Amino acid sequence: MSKYRFIDNGGVASPAGFAAAGVTAGFKRSGAPDFAMIYSEQPSEVAGVFTPCNFAAAPVRLGRQRVRSGKKVHAVIVNSGNANACTGGEGMAAAEKSCAVAAAALGVKPEEVLCSSTGRIGVQLDMSLIEKGVALAVNALASGDEASACAAAAIMTTDTVAKSTAVEVDCGDGRTVRIGAMTKGAGMIDPHLVRAPHATMLCYITTDAVLEKSFMEELLSSGADNSFNRITVDGDMSTNDTALMFANGVSGVEISRDSALAQVFSEALLAVMQKLARMMATDGEGATKFVEVRIENAASEADAKKLAEAVGNSLLCKTAWFGGDPNWGRVAAALGYAGVDFDPDKVDIYFGSIIVMRKGGNAGTPESDLAETMAQKELTVTVDMGCGSASYWVWTCDVSYEYVKINADYHT
Amino acid sequence: MSKYRFIDNGGVASPAGFAAAGVTAGFKRSGAPDFAMIYSEQPSEVAGVFTPCNFAAAPVRLGRQRVRSGKKVHAVIVNSGNANACTGGEGMAAAEKSCAVAAAALGVKPEEVLCSSTGRIGVQLDMSLIEKGVALAVNALASGDEASACAAAAIMTTDTVAKSTAVEVDCGDGRTVRIGAMTKGAGMIDPHLVRAPHATMLCYITTDAVLEKSFMEELLSSGADNSFNRITVDGDMSTNDTALMFANGVSGVEISRDSALAQVFSEALLAVMQKLARMMATDGEGATKFVEVRIENAASEADAKKLAEAVGNSLLCKTAWFGGDPNWGRVAAALGYAGVDFDPDKVDIYFGSIIVMRKGGNAGTPESDLAETMAQKELTVTVDMGCGSASYWVWTCDVSYEYVKINADYHT
Repeated sequence: MSKYRFIDNGGVASPAGFAAAGVTAGFKRSGAPDFAMIYSEQPSEVAGVFTPCNFAAAPVRLGRQRVRSGKKVHAVIVNSGNANACTGGEGMAAAEKSCAVAAAALGVKPEEVLCSSTGRIGVQLDMSLIEKGVALAVNALASGDEASACAAAAIMTTDTVAKSTAVEVDCGDGRTVRIGAMTKGAGMIDPHLVRAPHATMLCYITTDAVLEKSFMEELLSSGADNSFNRITVDGDMSTNDTALMFANGVSGVEISRDSALAQVFSEALLAVMQKLARMMATDGEGATKFVEVRIENAASEADAKKLAEAVGNSLLCKTAWFGGDPNWGRVAAALGYAGVDFDPDKVDIYFGSIIVMRKGGNAGTPESDLAETMAQKELTVTVDMGCGSASYWVWTCDVSYEYVKINADYHT
Repeated sequence: MSKYRFIDNGGVASPAGFAAAGVTAGFKRSGAPDFAMIYSEQPSEVAGVFTPCNFAAAPVRLGRQRVRSGKKVHAVIVNSGNANACTGGEGMAAAEKSCAVAAAALGVKPEEVLCSSTGRIGVQLDMSLIEKGVALAVNALASGDEASACAAAAIMTTDTVAKSTAVEVDCGDGRTVRIGAMTKGAGMIDPHLVRAPHATMLCYITTDAVLEKSFMEELLSSGADNSFNRITVDGDMSTNDTALMFANGVSGVEISRDSALAQVFSEALLAVMQKLARMMATDGEGATKFVEVRIENAASEADAKKLAEAVGNSLLCKTAWFGGDPNWGRVAAALGYAGVDFDPDKVDIYFGSIIVMRKGGNAGTPESDLAETMAQKELTVTVDMGCGSASYWVWTCDVSYEYVKINADYHT
């Protein structure tokens, strides 16, 4: 029977044929690593989902074109510290030039390289730093855990931890395929990656499986809907959100649609994406608490989604969670303004497994009974709407003083 | 020619025939005043707009019924410290009982009294405190500035200043009419008072003019659309929002629809409502800065509204304003995800009168030129969409450490 397992310290360079690097080009004043590269000698099929933001950054617009072209690619480069957004024609030319510089260094065609940027909006890319980053990265390219970790560290902005993972899928016949991934994102997070997403989250997934492009697009899109699109840190979305998936086929294992192996592969891919999504919510700017909001027994999934997002985005709920305050009235208020028709007298709310609102009123739970639940690093808020069988969940975090500090001071 | 002027220190008891009181009943642990009453011996026509929240509080549901009944009323009582929301049938009975207690003390019918509550959700009203509040308030009822100020102070929750004002309209023929008002609201503010509103804001408007109920409803509704519905503090809406307007006719001056006097009266009423709305945004929980977001030259007013609200509600913009950071990229990002179709290459953004984004890109303004503008207590952010002639504005404030502190600690 086929199954999958997580690879300790794995990342984008865990699948066969992929190499990665993370170096310091000089985009960040701090001197921290700020330029990453992922490379496959074998050309890769690529699927992508991008921000639908009307001010989509230059690398997003270029990436969308290149992914749609259907051509295989060899590499992606990522700089952190400058978003190359709201930079007009000059920014677009800089994105193309960046890919061309990397392509020349790698001996591939310019259109076989993609690029991403994250950081400050409205500042032109310094091409000399791109040139420096490319030169250093090409020299540092390697497979394995250390290279994966360097690449993941180089794409961070306000992230406090690098976010990498990988799994190995056991095909049940002695063969294996691997999926590796890295992501960044801690603020400006409210992605809606619908084969064209929202929020400064960047995600890169690599696999050595043989995958048809259209099937990979479906997997990436449905995976995003059940992972990245379920997290919200601040309800803001970014100009630069991008999730890209590369399949270089080096394992020789074909994952064909509707096969038993495809089932396991898609579960493994979802596990990778959910692990990274959870890491992003946990690492939400200034967050002290990871919160899962579950809506159960709603009239429709669309209703459940609206309700879950209203609670997950409520600043009053998020500050109460930070304070460890079992103020379920704020959850009720958020449900009430979600724009969904429901009978308030049927609604139950739970913090952890403890009921706090029963049938629209105070359940009478003593606050002392809730103290332990509210003090945990992870909180589940479950709402039983009592009017159907649809459900939806989102992952979010609390909002602390630190969130304000990070975002008030980000510029300087 | 008729005109209006603001009355120094005026409030709800400035119009003829209205008395007010603010006393300490004991709802607030702090011992601060927490019970207000407004009374008119002459019965008043009443108009009301209420929260559309699905968990509307008991006094909101009762008030909606009574306002719709078309009967005149004599009084409204307001307690702060307990919202009487999510309190089920017992809470509804408590709201009715509160009105009945006040009615008995005033010698009027129970259905001639309205009530409002604001404060903690999910806690039953202590009727002994209502009885105490009513007894004290009836005894303290008075006309004039001091009584108005006491009433306004008694409805505060996290407000740092009481919010009262009044105007006198000169009818041009030797007669005058007055409009008085008080409001509270500093957090959970995102009202949408569409003859049924959102957010814990409470507003009470009194006038001694003779007004037809349906005309007063129009005036209140359109006034709210151009004042309270334009402010946002945190994007959260409340279970208890209420704006009520009372006209007791004591001046004998009839304001008939389509008259020249109606024009001045409606301008005066809007001036009162805008003054209070501005006070609420300025007093936003933890706010250090008042911000006006103006969208100009949009394709439609609906588009302009979505764009203004996206910027006004953006936590990233609000924290940047707190930090005095001229990070116009966050404004651009918020415009980009507002769900409006526009050409990014036509958009200009101004901070104060200084352009920061020109035609979708960096306008090249040195940050030193923006320092003074960003340091002001009031900031205007203007966006020229360059694609039409519609406009919309909202009033908001920045988000500071103090906002988080207030809302994390509110419970305890």
